Amino acid sequence: MIMPKRTLRNELRRFLREDVGQGDITTEAIVPKETNILAQIVLKQPAVICGLNEVKVLFEMLGVKFFEKVKDGDEVSAGTVIAEVEGDGKKILTAERTVLNLLMRMSGIATEARKLVKEVQKIDPKIRIAATRKTAPGLRYFDKRAVIVGGGYAHRMRLDEAFLVKDNHITIAGEIKEALKRIQLSSHSSKRVEVEAKTKEQAVQAAELGVDIVMLDNMSPKEAAETIKELSARNLRHKVQIEISGGITPENFVSYAVLKPDIISLGSLTHSVRAVDISLEVIKANLPS
Amino acid sequence: MIMPKRTLRNELRRFLREDVGQGDITTEAIVPKETNILAQIVLKQPAVICGLNEVKVLFEMLGVKFFEKVKDGDEVSAGTVIAEVEGDGKKILTAERTVLNLLMRMSGIATEARKLVKEVQKIDPKIRIAATRKTAPGLRYFDKRAVIVGGGYAHRMRLDEAFLVKDNHITIAGEIKEALKRIQLSSHSSKRVEVEAKTKEQAVQAAELGVDIVMLDNMSPKEAAETIKELSARNLRHKVQIEISGGITPENFVSYAVLKPDIISLGSLTHSVRAVDISLEVIKANLPS
Amino acid sequence: MIMPKRTLRNELRRFLREDVGQGDITTEAIVPKETNILAQIVLKQPAVICGLNEVKVLFEMLGVKFFEKVKDGDEVSAGTVIAEVEGDGKKILTAERTVLNLLMRMSGIATEARKLVKEVQKIDPKIRIAATRKTAPGLRYFDKRAVIVGGGYAHRMRLDEAFLVKDNHITIAGEIKEALKRIQLSSHSSKRVEVEAKTKEQAVQAAELGVDIVMLDNMSPKEAAETIKELSARNLRHKVQIEISGGITPENFVSYAVLKPDIISLGSLTHSVRAVDISLEVIKANLPS
Amino acid sequence: MIMPKRTLRNELRRFLREDVGQGDITTEAIVPKETNILAQIVLKQPAVICGLNEVKVLFEMLGVKFFEKVKDGDEVSAGTVIAEVEGDGKKILTAERTVLNLLMRMSGIATEARKLVKEVQKIDPKIRIAATRKTAPGLRYFDKRAVIVGGGYAHRMRLDEAFLVKDNHITIAGEIKEALKRIQLSSHSSKRVEVEAKTKEQAVQAAELGVDIVMLDNMSPKEAAETIKELSARNLRHKVQIEISGGITPENFVSYAVLKPDIISLGSLTHSVRAVDISLEVIKANLPS
Amino acid sequence: MIMPKRTLRNELRRFLREDVGQGDITTEAIVPKETNILAQIVLKQPAVICGLNEVKVLFEMLGVKFFEKVKDGDEVSAGTVIAEVEGDGKKILTAERTVLNLLMRMSGIATEARKLVKEVQKIDPKIRIAATRKTAPGLRYFDKRAVIVGGGYAHRMRLDEAFLVKDNHITIAGEIKEALKRIQLSSHSSKRVEVEAKTKEQAVQAAELGVDIVMLDNMSPKEAAETIKELSARNLRHKVQIEISGGITPENFVSYAVLKPDIISLGSLTHSVRAVDISLEVIKANLPS
Amino acid sequence: MIMPKRTLRNELRRFLREDVGQGDITTEAIVPKETNILAQIVLKQPAVICGLNEVKVLFEMLGVKFFEKVKDGDEVSAGTVIAEVEGDGKKILTAERTVLNLLMRMSGIATEARKLVKEVQKIDPKIRIAATRKTAPGLRYFDKRAVIVGGGYAHRMRLDEAFLVKDNHITIAGEIKEALKRIQLSSHSSKRVEVEAKTKEQAVQAAELGVDIVMLDNMSPKEAAETIKELSARNLRHKVQIEISGGITPENFVSYAVLKPDIISLGSLTHSVRAVDISLEVIKANLPS
Repeated sequence: MIMPKRTLRNELRRFLREDVGQGDITTEAIVPKETNILAQIVLKQPAVICGLNEVKVLFEMLGVKFFEKVKDGDEVSAGTVIAEVEGDGKKILTAERTVLNLLMRMSGIATEARKLVKEVQKIDPKIRIAATRKTAPGLRYFDKRAVIVGGGYAHRMRLDEAFLVKDNHITIAGEIKEALKRIQLSSHSSKRVEVEAKTKEQAVQAAELGVDIVMLDNMSPKEAAETIKELSARNLRHKVQIEISGGITPENFVSYAVLKPDIISLGSLTHSVRAVDISLEVIKANLPS
Repeated sequence: MIMPKRTLRNELRRFLREDVGQGDITTEAIVPKETNILAQIVLKQPAVICGLNEVKVLFEMLGVKFFEKVKDGDEVSAGTVIAEVEGDGKKILTAERTVLNLLMRMSGIATEARKLVKEVQKIDPKIRIAATRKTAPGLRYFDKRAVIVGGGYAHRMRLDEAFLVKDNHITIAGEIKEALKRIQLSSHSSKRVEVEAKTKEQAVQAAELGVDIVMLDNMSPKEAAETIKELSARNLRHKVQIEISGGITPENFVSYAVLKPDIISLGSLTHSVRAVDISLEVIKANLPS
Repeated sequence: MIMPKRTLRNELRRFLREDVGQGDITTEAIVPKETNILAQIVLKQPAVICGLNEVKVLFEMLGVKFFEKVKDGDEVSAGTVIAEVEGDGKKILTAERTVLNLLMRMSGIATEARKLVKEVQKIDPKIRIAATRKTAPGLRYFDKRAVIVGGGYAHRMRLDEAFLVKDNHITIAGEIKEALKRIQLSSHSSKRVEVEAKTKEQAVQAAELGVDIVMLDNMSPKEAAETIKELSARNLRHKVQIEISGGITPENFVSYAVLKPDIISLGSLTHSVRAVDISLEVIKANLPS
Repeated sequence: MIMPKRTLRNELRRFLREDVGQGDITTEAIVPKETNILAQIVLKQPAVICGLNEVKVLFEMLGVKFFEKVKDGDEVSAGTVIAEVEGDGKKILTAERTVLNLLMRMSGIATEARKLVKEVQKIDPKIRIAATRKTAPGLRYFDKRAVIVGGGYAHRMRLDEAFLVKDNHITIAGEIKEALKRIQLSSHSSKRVEVEAKTKEQAVQAAELGVDIVMLDNMSPKEAAETIKELSARNLRHKVQIEISGGITPENFVSYAVLKPDIISLGSLTHSVRAVDISLEVIKANLPS
Repeated sequence: MIMPKRTLRNELRRFLREDVGQGDITTEAIVPKETNILAQIVLKQPAVICGLNEVKVLFEMLGVKFFEKVKDGDEVSAGTVIAEVEGDGKKILTAERTVLNLLMRMSGIATEARKLVKEVQKIDPKIRIAATRKTAPGLRYFDKRAVIVGGGYAHRMRLDEAFLVKDNHITIAGEIKEALKRIQLSSHSSKRVEVEAKTKEQAVQAAELGVDIVMLDNMSPKEAAETIKELSARNLRHKVQIEISGGITPENFVSYAVLKPDIISLGSLTHSVRAVDISLEVIKANLPS
Repeated sequence: MIMPKRTLRNELRRFLREDVGQGDITTEAIVPKETNILAQIVLKQPAVICGLNEVKVLFEMLGVKFFEKVKDGDEVSAGTVIAEVEGDGKKILTAERTVLNLLMRMSGIATEARKLVKEVQKIDPKIRIAATRKTAPGLRYFDKRAVIVGGGYAHRMRLDEAFLVKDNHITIAGEIKEALKRIQLSSHSSKRVEVEAKTKEQAVQAAELGVDIVMLDNMSPKEAAETIKELSARNLRHKVQIEISGGITPENFVSYAVLKPDIISLGSLTHSVRAVDISLEVIKANLPS
């Protein structure tokens, strides 16, 4: 999970400008120049914290000192001061909303991911909880990073990272074998290959053709179980990774986990986030003398 | 709610590139050049649709034809084909995820906003349901537009749009009166002024000083009721707009609405979105002859 | 009047590159590396100084020390050293023309604005002298800021800041009432409304409909006087601000001012600027040893 | 005078966005979608027209038809319709101010340049009236082009175009000869060399050293006359071009022209522009049926 | 080998502007507006052609028609017209040098790659000739594409594409095993792993640890032979791909090829290119009537 | 040879990102945070070094200390440490390839240029060895600078720098005289004029018309000799500079040099570069304690 520092700064600056526009006219009018402020960032409900790393970069870009009181990934109780900031009052108040919006979303994702990771680890610590590409537009990096901080697995960041043959691709190619042949021909470098299987037969076929990962897509727990059994029977199970994806909910989650796939991936981790409540409170303001 | 067309295109392009990176290597390998595809965008659960306008712009940028089957703001049942696309197969499959991510989020917001608007209208059709600035970073325009399409009110898009004196500003200025005086001095153009009141006294003071809107912030229904009563008693109620904000939930929502404020605003509308399930399905693929 | 610091730096850098292109080949050839220079910026005619704030930012971007000897807004006599700069000789000479071009224009605007403000204050200190949007393309911020420094009022910076219903809008809407109704419908946030009135009747109509400002556009002093009288007679004068605009010259200026409008606005303040003569003179050059 | 088409479009777009910001909220609210408008651009005072070429590009970028009724460089009487535009009403009204600001400034410059060119041609048609680099920041291309359209000479567009040794350069180099030697050494391509001479002696020295142009800077007509006489006496006059610059006014203009220099350059042509009054008037509006 | 179309256009535009600057002043002066030109692009020496695809995009951006007479990858004899262009004379002449510079370099690379591919295929058609990351700065895409067109293998486009553990990495990690462990820990998605081995022992160790590719770096043919023999002896040869890299020349090339590695990679393919001579010749010019 | 510092930084950053993409995943995984590294840049074959200035800027942008052990332009023997770098290990390893690619190419060009300059100086030290515009796309500045560091002459950097009338221009204009007339008319500033002559007659004609440089294009040594003789006979030789260009090789180089032209220009200097072998070797790595 790497984003060039400069890119990260540009993203954060863009977030800030989106909120500020030409200027925070209220703060500009009311807060005198060179007012020094000490403020606390306070968690209002129990959560796994995420986003402090990013927020730190933003405050430092603004010349504001940022003191982490906890670390990204920590599980923290309600009422905790997770960070303090000190510096130019205009800048802190102007950036407040942008900072909180980012922390609230990332912590929301990390909290949910952590919950699922803990549950799955009771069954088998080797199973990975993964995100999908169903992230909020423009927030791929932040959403994926929050999943990792929660203990999950990022999966493909972008379409150029690995091959993933989906239903529509198979339709167009005619069959899995043909799709894989085309990938073989086009490839001028080495990237892994995953195939989405809607049926046991597809899964077996993909595994026999030597793909790296077979994704069991939108299968019921029963279908998934039968597919995995078949793969084992044919001595293919250990040659491929198994990913289960599609239609996984808190209710049916365990039924899939007991099948001991390598990966369980959920779109809801990033497309239906519940923000964690966090606020920024000014503790002290020193006006310029 | 205006975004320059060019800016919108740049945003959509950015979303697409975030997902695609250097290229959709799977699609590039498997889908032959000049394959023409017809695909349907299908709603999987009842929802208020939002984002078709934006998605249309994106497909047109790619030279893909886009046929809306419903309109943004329509309430649509599960299973409905909300749009069809026809054009270059490589481009449609490459853009699929970006398009769905946008539609799913915007429709999720519009659906929730519509629900609240309908509820409040049973009590008083003049009360407006408003969004806050608690939007996902980088998605201000899209989140706010979805609220409007749902029937809600956008409120400040950015910090430069109007004055909103918050608790921290009052702390620094010492008192509301001083804060408003500073706004008066700094202003070289005409923008509205809102003040956040935590107490009945602050609300009265702000109204007496002639602000445009008083926001009752994090008040219980009882406190809010008393404040509004006091404003009426002092003949100030009709001189200001009343906004209620902070801590509003589906449970306590009605208790606030019966006070007949001008505006009820909720952060959750945009910070804790539940995505609507939507998929893209290839119906026909014509390979180049 | 806020411009994000980063935006200002970008603008100044753009100005500089426009003049420099690939490089100041003369200075690069002649001035040895690490030559340290002390230079004075000298005013050649009496003026209100403006632009030192901006020029300071530019020099600091270049690593050159900038010492203000007067402040933006000061009225200064011919021959005054308004600032000194010290630093790398190549950079100072390369930036010279860009710096002077900016100072000369901004001081020209501030000087003219100050003259009008002083005149109007003899009549009524509450009347504001305002700029229009008739600024040099690309120089909106700089031209408006110069007006403010001169003591004037900036007025709308951009079309998105407030509603201003002009003649053409009324023509298309059919009547003022319809135009205002459309504004009411479209608005998802709170911005002020001004209407341009060419006749007494339009002015009355606009005021009755509750707009914030009525602009008396291209009226003769007599027409303007009658209009204001009518508004007073109808008890509307104190409910709206009155702006007089169009065709105002040094000659007829007083005839309008005596009507005691809230605002008098003049395009000539920014579209027909007389530059103030300012030069940069090298005082000392220390070659590298 | 070349500006890449793409650069020109970017400049015009920047001008437009500066004025529009997030959107022309008045026009967006009042003018219905797909309203077709015919409007005239009308000259309000006699002038040499300039800027139609640029404005045409802007309107075409917006999909608006632009019909020139006169050409850039034409001398036109008050009341003339100089162009008509037809197309989307929203776009025409939104662009109105930007378009007029550009036309008014460029026509103002062209008109003044033409006046001087005509005067000088009575004395000697070979003398060129030239602009300096004292243009409005960001408007170099537009200001210089207006001078050319008026019949003048653009001179250096940027510092990288030719060598111009000024007083400060000579101070640092010690003497003209040394400055020219350094230019010789640094040059890896062939660009012309001009030297600014404050005295007769400097002018002679520069001419003897073989520079391409000698600029007589801030000389009185008498000093300039003596300098030119001396150059002739030494058989140097025909070997260099003579440029007179600095302190030239309408009053003393002829005293310099009679000396028959090659070039007379004036900063006031571009730093103290009087805008020409031009307006845009909607003639017909067809609402969508 | 994918580059987004928009990125490609930006790259080509950048190349063009680098050469043109503010404008091709010679062509602008001499070629009348609307002169229509037919020109031929002629190969002056035998070569494998490459770059026509890119050049076509550039000409189309300029509105010039481009007719390929051969295809990228064709082996063509001296004197062949490889393409014709028809359109605006100004644009064709202005773009000439940029177009030729690109074609000459890309064809040079493709020609050399083809030569090596043919040689190696005599020995074993499964061995791939690969490029390295030793491309000209800014030309990665173009250089790699030329290698592919020549019949070679692109290898890693960028550092984010796959893991390649080099000597310095091993030094810092202490040993190969530790380096691979760190990769395992850091990885949140699936990318292939290659290890650079300087000795037989390192090669064996890497293969035993299950890496995807072992690169024999700067080994003599003898060392490489022994290493491959050892891998076979340990039953590891078929489990990894073998790449030979470093110090390969036309002279020793065959000694490596006979070892039947999977890949032979050469930096010289892209860092020491011999341009192919190609020219553009105007055949017909139709002046505007 | 000037490139604005900011432009240079942008170019270098672009080169780096081209190679790195989203991140150097190998280095990120293996090298611990805050590992301090000392590395040497070592020359592997005798060469004239070039590119240290640029590489220094890149390392400084990354916060890495750069110590030159030799200077650009020095002739250095194989095995020499030409620079040392010290700083963050992640950054040094990530930038390694970009840095070496630049140094290897620029040193290759400088080495070849120096060789030719030395040869020509044996014949006549006043003859200049010049580059053409046949540089690698995007590398104009770097290629030209390497030629200068090698002792050569940069010639036109871009098409806007000077007039160069080529064969195609003459064809379109009809004759040289007409081409030069058009240049005269179009010019609003002073730039030098060169004409490409394919025949003795053209050369004479151009010289008589007063151009600054005559280029003898693709002439055999004999033709060139006759042309120069004819120019001398007509007393034109000293009035123009003579450039010989086209088809010059190491074999025929001397035959042209003995004609004592002012300039000999060769495309091969920049279009067919042989990279110099240079490597970066980590000497010491201090892990964070």
